[in-house]
Amino acid sequence: MKIIILQEKLKKGLNIVERIAGKSLTFSILNNILLSSEKSFLNLSATDLELGIKWWILSKTEKEDKIVIPAKTLTSFIGFLPNQKITLEKKDDVLYIENENYKSQIKGLSSEDFPIIPEVSKEEFFEFQSIPFCQKISQVVDFTSSSQTRPEISGVYFSFKKDEIRIVATDSFRLGEKIISPEKINSRFSEKEVSFILPQKTIKEVINIFGEREGSLKIYFSPNQVLFEGKMQETDHPEVQLVSRLIEGEYPDYQEIIPKKSETQIVLDKNEFLNQIKIASLFSGKINEIKFKIDPKKKGVEIFSQNPELGENQSFIPGEIKGGALEISFNHRFLMDGLLNIKTKDVVFELVNSESPGVLKPAGDLSYIYLLMPIKN
Amino acid sequence: MKIIILQEKLKKGLNIVERIAGKSLTFSILNNILLSSEKSFLNLSATDLELGIKWWILSKTEKEDKIVIPAKTLTSFIGFLPNQKITLEKKDDVLYIENENYKSQIKGLSSEDFPIIPEVSKEEFFEFQSIPFCQKISQVVDFTSSSQTRPEISGVYFSFKKDEIRIVATDSFRLGEKIISPEKINSRFSEKEVSFILPQKTIKEVINIFGEREGSLKIYFSPNQVLFEGKMQETDHPEVQLVSRLIEGEYPDYQEIIPKKSETQIVLDKNEFLNQIKIASLFSGKINEIKFKIDPKKKGVEIFSQNPELGENQSFIPGEIKGGALEISFNHRFLMDGLLNIKTKDVVFELVNSESPGVLKPAGDLSYIYLLMPIKN
Repeated sequence: MKIIILQEKLKKGLNIVERIAGKSLTFSILNNILLSSEKSFLNLSATDLELGIKWWILSKTEKEDKIVIPAKTLTSFIGFLPNQKITLEKKDDVLYIENENYKSQIKGLSSEDFPIIPEVSKEEFFEFQSIPFCQKISQVVDFTSSSQTRPEISGVYFSFKKDEIRIVATDSFRLGEKIISPEKINSRFSEKEVSFILPQKTIKEVINIFGEREGSLKIYFSPNQVLFEGKMQETDHPEVQLVSRLIEGEYPDYQEIIPKKSETQIVLDKNEFLNQIKIASLFSGKINEIKFKIDPKKKGVEIFSQNPELGENQSFIPGEIKGGALEISFNHRFLMDGLLNIKTKDVVFELVNSESPGVLKPAGDLSYIYLLMPIKN
Repeated sequence: MKIIILQEKLKKGLNIVERIAGKSLTFSILNNILLSSEKSFLNLSATDLELGIKWWILSKTEKEDKIVIPAKTLTSFIGFLPNQKITLEKKDDVLYIENENYKSQIKGLSSEDFPIIPEVSKEEFFEFQSIPFCQKISQVVDFTSSSQTRPEISGVYFSFKKDEIRIVATDSFRLGEKIISPEKINSRFSEKEVSFILPQKTIKEVINIFGEREGSLKIYFSPNQVLFEGKMQETDHPEVQLVSRLIEGEYPDYQEIIPKKSETQIVLDKNEFLNQIKIASLFSGKINEIKFKIDPKKKGVEIFSQNPELGENQSFIPGEIKGGALEISFNHRFLMDGLLNIKTKDVVFELVNSESPGVLKPAGDLSYIYLLMPIKN
């Protein structure tokens, strides 16, 4: 292997691929990056066995070969070099790196032991503009469960239909659902419906890689794997492929628990509501309880919290109320998590009674709901 | 106690005073702030018994009194409130806080149990412009020892003479000395020399409080305490007083170990030198060793590092060399710490032989030296 490559391009690829490479003590080969010099490209690969990544960089290839190099050492080293041409050469499982003022040798491993990243068939796909797609999945990705007992809710649920995609996450205390409407979808898709559950880590990496990346993102499906792919700007060749396993199991029928109609509906200024919850949270005690008194006559909501050791707080937020009076308590952390994902100036808070879930929606936007369980007395 | 005060001013004071209040489990009164309403002012005080702070804020005082309130709760709470007038009122050791939309009660303690922050006589002092003074002490503050066995080097040493102030810190592996020259000093000072050792925490807080604060800083001495004082912009009243105990013991005669003359002198571009040390550090192994080969014929320095497990690195930095050839090894961390405190474009590296300390100086600036011990073979 002998190639010449620009420091800046190599650094960018390594910084992304290194995140997938593991910090595993028991299976240390995963802490490495596989470098393969192909015709005109250097390919970087890493995997933690659940999630694999491949990244391509244009390079001048003098000799094709492969080598496996510790991810952290290589990434730090290349990151510190100046932005000049670098020569990478393999001799006896050692990588020689050289530019004008530096000569380094990093000890590598044979590429034979490196795990293979599975291929995904490229027949059916959906295509999105990367940045808005990532903004949408960001609105639910944090609500998955971290419990090991119900693996199916530890991931993010995707349901693809020809005319609608639903993206859902829940930890059984709260749930976020984002709907992506049809006019924004390109696809080659013959089934009636495809649904799957992806690990939260996969979605976080998708957001990390594609969240600020211009251009489009294609999602390919196979029964056990999903592939996210982005192309190079300069050529039609892929720049990045992220391959993830799916989580097995059936996603709960979450639509069952979304209230069909509400008895009390309140429209509030989102930032002011968020701020008052933050203040109330300081006095909310161990179970994070904040109490709301909603009275249509008062044209607003009273917010109470009390901690026997610290003290108590009371505040009032003006708002437009439809429906009946109600007292209800919520966990302030779950309220804040939902409000932080609502991007409109006003938020609609829909309630049934003090025992049923509440629903937060962006005012005038039907594509997002955030549902949360009340604290029952 | 009843006062009216602006949220923004109260927030600013609390954020600073809260840093001094402790997180002590055994002596929980120290985790509180003492609020005293004086004529026209609210005073906030906190102490960890080594370091005490007083902060004054202009307020409309209706009734003078004192109360002790948990630092973290009060600071978070006031921080979240909007910037409006706030009423603070004490009733039965409870602090009632009220503005337009909020009503809170925070449980307090009696002010009788709160430790007294010692007074320091205001006869003799030095006066400095806050910002440049803090920039200067920042150049040495990180080099103190964290070991408990030699408390005298756990602090920063100050030696005040009429015409010169020296500020020194060392951990016995490296040492920084900053000299403040006379034309920048105002003072009322009758002794020939005053010297003392201040805890590192004190100096870090001085930098935190005065480092971005326009105006002057006065330092008052007494045999056991030092007082740092800054005035309000609006009035001649103090805004902040920081009172610190001194560290007992005698500071080592550090000037003994500074080499009187060098055999080899190298002038290097500081940023390039720093960058090459960072790169070499990746291969430097457990004792952080980097080796330098200095040869006047080569018009530069060769830098080597080697790690039996990872690989090795070699680089070359051009520089102007006076004196003889030399091979010497240093700990890369100590080299970087020194270089980061040198603000000039070029750095002068002075060496005697491979066993004697090396000295880094900013090129053309006699006010700062950084001395570091070599790694001996």
